[in-house]
Amino acid sequence: MEGIFKYDPVSFDEAASCAVILDQSRLPWEKSFLRIDTAEGMYDAIRQLKVRGAPAIGIAAAFGLYAVALKADDESLRDTFFEASALLRSSRPTAVNLSYALDRMEACYREHGELPSGRIRVALRNEAFRIKEEDAAMCMSVAMNALPLIERSGLRILTHCNAGHLAVSRLGTALGPVYLAMAKGLSPKVYADETRPLFQGARLTAFELMEAGIDVTLICDNMASYVMGKGLVDVVLTGCDRIAANGDVANKIGTSSVAILARHYGIPFYVLGPSSTIDPACPDGSAVEIEQRDGAEVTSMYFARPVAPAGVKVLNPAFDITPAEMITAIITERGVFYPPYDFTGRRDG
Amino acid sequence: MEGIFKYDPVSFDEAASCAVILDQSRLPWEKSFLRIDTAEGMYDAIRQLKVRGAPAIGIAAAFGLYAVALKADDESLRDTFFEASALLRSSRPTAVNLSYALDRMEACYREHGELPSGRIRVALRNEAFRIKEEDAAMCMSVAMNALPLIERSGLRILTHCNAGHLAVSRLGTALGPVYLAMAKGLSPKVYADETRPLFQGARLTAFELMEAGIDVTLICDNMASYVMGKGLVDVVLTGCDRIAANGDVANKIGTSSVAILARHYGIPFYVLGPSSTIDPACPDGSAVEIEQRDGAEVTSMYFARPVAPAGVKVLNPAFDITPAEMITAIITERGVFYPPYDFTGRRDG
Repeated sequence: MEGIFKYDPVSFDEAASCAVILDQSRLPWEKSFLRIDTAEGMYDAIRQLKVRGAPAIGIAAAFGLYAVALKADDESLRDTFFEASALLRSSRPTAVNLSYALDRMEACYREHGELPSGRIRVALRNEAFRIKEEDAAMCMSVAMNALPLIERSGLRILTHCNAGHLAVSRLGTALGPVYLAMAKGLSPKVYADETRPLFQGARLTAFELMEAGIDVTLICDNMASYVMGKGLVDVVLTGCDRIAANGDVANKIGTSSVAILARHYGIPFYVLGPSSTIDPACPDGSAVEIEQRDGAEVTSMYFARPVAPAGVKVLNPAFDITPAEMITAIITERGVFYPPYDFTGRRDG
Repeated sequence: MEGIFKYDPVSFDEAASCAVILDQSRLPWEKSFLRIDTAEGMYDAIRQLKVRGAPAIGIAAAFGLYAVALKADDESLRDTFFEASALLRSSRPTAVNLSYALDRMEACYREHGELPSGRIRVALRNEAFRIKEEDAAMCMSVAMNALPLIERSGLRILTHCNAGHLAVSRLGTALGPVYLAMAKGLSPKVYADETRPLFQGARLTAFELMEAGIDVTLICDNMASYVMGKGLVDVVLTGCDRIAANGDVANKIGTSSVAILARHYGIPFYVLGPSSTIDPACPDGSAVEIEQRDGAEVTSMYFARPVAPAGVKVLNPAFDITPAEMITAIITERGVFYPPYDFTGRRDG
């Protein structure tokens, strides 16, 4: 597996005491890395989608907090740390992994808060690295749980947005079984929805799959029905930003559309994610706050000239809710779960 | 009604003997008009979507043929005319209106072919203008047939691509009842799918509705499920490029997706078009040739920089087939037709 990935999207440079993130907003044009050691810097990086993908955001936030703790002087360490955590928590509302990682870092601080500052910093370091390592291990488990399902359904996969190596440590979630299948010598074929308005499919999924030598075909979001109707898709795999207790899934805008189409065409629709994405406190999808973003992302971003008339009204929800009943199975590192889902009171499904 | 429209997208300048088309490829940035009097010029204009919209293409082709006939010398008139018609026929394969208009112009030529050249040209002129006038009258009838349906369902409309004033003479098809509702003092509200890859919704539908003072909100194609799920849409209206005898409809890529979503959410899905769009010779959707276009439209066109890695494989079908059973009703100038559809052997439904 190691040879597949030529870069690490989120890491920590211990010599320089800073988080290092691959600037995803500059893909596919250049692979440039940002070095971040302030809460404001990480807030901006998350807010501006320089780092994106629910698990990657959590890891980046944890590394950012650790960098802040390294820079803070001993007297103000506690205040600086918790202020930084609160700021980062406000950067994006929908993905649960962000608050999950910050909760763990805060709990770690509280647990070691009475120790000398140096030992607190070591504990925070270990917790941040543990979050990343656990994430990588979870992705491997998610992928291994999913692989038999796609071997059974067929290896022609449609995916939406990017839930691969760039979004998560190592294998990614939705793309994990694709990488595993490739490592096994199989020949997976991926249709990547371009994923408007920010083109995560075109810019990121196409990029990372091509880098890994996997057969990928780019389509516009509105072509998913066409390729499904032509019998070109065996299975749909997507990631998730938050899984409610009843199995409703918040994920990138358009995911619910893909799920409804898959149901119509009789194609299995699988949601893949680490169990940290499950939010047992969230009863169902209606309780998930959907982030509304700037209309300029739809009309102007990436374009040589705006593609709509000046002043046009725009709706730009960044996520939607896929109802539990449209999801064939939810796959976490703990196993494969089928409806009716019940994730009440536990993160482990 | 007259005050609503400030421009004519397809007309003929009799003083200059040329077709005049609003260059839709330059909208919404500038309203520039092209003057065309050669078959090659009209072929390029259609092929490059400077004029688009199934009925508008037919009218433009008829005017183009008439301009060619005016320029040709008397001896070669017949050959020049039929060669030009054959060239124009090959410009775009999916919309039936193009071949319908060319068939009429050719039949007109044959009918008058024994007359002096000057009289042939007059006959061709009259036929071309008649095609346009009939189209405008049909649009008015389509809109009047559709208006009671949307008054009943509600005036919050979702539409895909552009089947309005720009695509057709005068009222347009899908947007016809919207203009009629507005003229009646009602307050229709339109959600316009941006319609990738060529942004006809963002560039054209948003443009023409804003110009007419109608409330329009732009969304990405993958947000249709979100707005439907939120209960913001009462009815879906789309145009059509070809209606098969069994009621299957070829229309802009993504239309089938919108139809499947509308069915899922219990929202009526109406297809509007002049009966010239019915192709009784086409038994069902599988017989419709789907135009496959250049992948650069998906990755590069309109963008400051390509949004996908260089060399990525792209699928770019320009149309899809919406199965008859997903269509609540098909509305032509002859009336409202419900499934099971049977357009066998007649254009009039």
